[in-house]
Amino acid sequence: MDKKKSISMKGIAELANVSVATVSRVINNNGRFSKETQEKIQAIIAEYGYVTNMAAKSLRMSKSKTIGLIVPNIDNEWFSQLVLEIENFFFKEDYSVFICNTSQDENKEIAYFKSLDSKLVDGIICISGIEQIPVDVITRNIPIVCIDRKPKDHSNAYYVESNHYSGGYLATEELIKQGCKRIVIVSRNKTLSVNKQRLEGYRQALKDYHLKEYKELQLLLDPSKANYEGAREAMNQLIKKGIPFDGIFATNDWRAYGAMVALIENNIKIPEQVKIIGFDDVFISQSCHPSLSTIKQDISGLAKKASDLLLRLMNDIDIEDDHKRYILPVEVIRRDSTKKA
Amino acid sequence: MDKKKSISMKGIAELANVSVATVSRVINNNGRFSKETQEKIQAIIAEYGYVTNMAAKSLRMSKSKTIGLIVPNIDNEWFSQLVLEIENFFFKEDYSVFICNTSQDENKEIAYFKSLDSKLVDGIICISGIEQIPVDVITRNIPIVCIDRKPKDHSNAYYVESNHYSGGYLATEELIKQGCKRIVIVSRNKTLSVNKQRLEGYRQALKDYHLKEYKELQLLLDPSKANYEGAREAMNQLIKKGIPFDGIFATNDWRAYGAMVALIENNIKIPEQVKIIGFDDVFISQSCHPSLSTIKQDISGLAKKASDLLLRLMNDIDIEDDHKRYILPVEVIRRDSTKKA
Repeated sequence: MDKKKSISMKGIAELANVSVATVSRVINNNGRFSKETQEKIQAIIAEYGYVTNMAAKSLRMSKSKTIGLIVPNIDNEWFSQLVLEIENFFFKEDYSVFICNTSQDENKEIAYFKSLDSKLVDGIICISGIEQIPVDVITRNIPIVCIDRKPKDHSNAYYVESNHYSGGYLATEELIKQGCKRIVIVSRNKTLSVNKQRLEGYRQALKDYHLKEYKELQLLLDPSKANYEGAREAMNQLIKKGIPFDGIFATNDWRAYGAMVALIENNIKIPEQVKIIGFDDVFISQSCHPSLSTIKQDISGLAKKASDLLLRLMNDIDIEDDHKRYILPVEVIRRDSTKKA
Repeated sequence: MDKKKSISMKGIAELANVSVATVSRVINNNGRFSKETQEKIQAIIAEYGYVTNMAAKSLRMSKSKTIGLIVPNIDNEWFSQLVLEIENFFFKEDYSVFICNTSQDENKEIAYFKSLDSKLVDGIICISGIEQIPVDVITRNIPIVCIDRKPKDHSNAYYVESNHYSGGYLATEELIKQGCKRIVIVSRNKTLSVNKQRLEGYRQALKDYHLKEYKELQLLLDPSKANYEGAREAMNQLIKKGIPFDGIFATNDWRAYGAMVALIENNIKIPEQVKIIGFDDVFISQSCHPSLSTIKQDISGLAKKASDLLLRLMNDIDIEDDHKRYILPVEVIRRDSTKKA
């Protein structure tokens, strides 16, 4: 073998008497190879100088001690809190965390997955804004943990989420218990699994309490308008149409606040005439007037579980099947907007 | 020369008849070398295979098409908006942006500078939370643009900021014009240059309008308490002490909101008894009751100027001395909290 040029993966495989795939696994350090194989391959690399690309550095250093964190919107307080908790966790473990904001743009998400891959991060936590997480663009075998949304094919995925179904159920039940009978839901259309589950919870609660489901009370906003302003507009239209209602479940607090402002604009009294509940427990829910009842997700719990899981995966610790997925409970925060009149 | 091992920088320098520093500049692609020198060095590298580390890849690819963005607190709406504008700008230019959140922790900031450097980013935008920006940990010669705070030794630095002095002056003037004579300032102690400048503006406005400066009305909060809660506490203490005042200038909107809540808790009427103005124009300033007057910084302008500057620097475009620094104007947003009683 010519020593002048650095050796190829194929050359290493021949000398080590293993497959190219095995060499690739050792170089990419994905864990599925024996200690002996690793040592044999490393010895060949040391002798023949396989140094063609960054993978070599990764091999030498073993870990790059960085992780990537994909987030749809850092200007959403709920996401930013989650990001900060994860960042703190990993900084204490001596990892740098590169935060990538996708603005729920699929092209951005793909670009960031590629970019993180090429920068040799050791793992990725993904709070995806899109339905299909583009894990297939990752060329190296690194662990990915999803928060709050599962990848479409999630048979083998690692993920941590809140019980959104239960959240939708509890929110609707809270309104029903305070006497509401015609309950509007304000949510996002073309929904991510989280919103679908919240809607399912709403429907099940109506059913369990023998209340009718009115299609005209389901305000499923276009994704581009599923915010404060869009919710405010949609509620104003509903009121203009004269469709009666006595409760509103909005699937996040900003939508709830938009709906609340629409009620106030129309001189509808909260909670006397209409009760309202949101989701997420962000600051606006405490600070608005009247204060907004909401469903609180366990942000610290989500951050900790996801970070723990990724850390164990990066350290090649085996994860049993029943520890691949965590679904955390949520709770009702009762404030003035659902008080009995 | 032995071709078996890849060549060293010194070896390249000898063959090219240039200094090692020049070789380093070419490899790190910092721009200060001639086209001929670059070609000569690249030819030697091609022949002898200088491929010891990631710098080689950087050289081959010329640019890594990633930038780093250092930010103190992404859960602060003002920062997160700035971050999103910068991210959008660079994504359109085909750059990935790695956001690094420092929580105003000096150790984190240093670690992230190092980490971004080792990941071969092409440039850094730094919204530093600390006084002394640790640019010296960067081993490669890459451009750094600071937003909103200048590095301590800023003779050669690139930075973009709002006119904080003018902001402090205008805020105080607004209160004075509405009849206030004893104006509290609620700010952050051990201040970053921004807060120092806002305080200076406040003092100058008092002076220009022949108002006395009262030390007991300067509430300079400990950095760990310079938030909503800290401002609320400090105002409650001031009220308890019975020190009279009729206006409040808080150097950000959250501090202003904290002060406002303290007034409401003490049944002090806004704006009839006390007028109040904040800084930043974040959402809470519009949504609180009464709505909060504030000083608006030109976030888009700051983001665009800083991004433009970094892009030009990364493309090795010469920047004239008078385009190294930009100071953007601010404006008063008048709302209910400073209305004439």
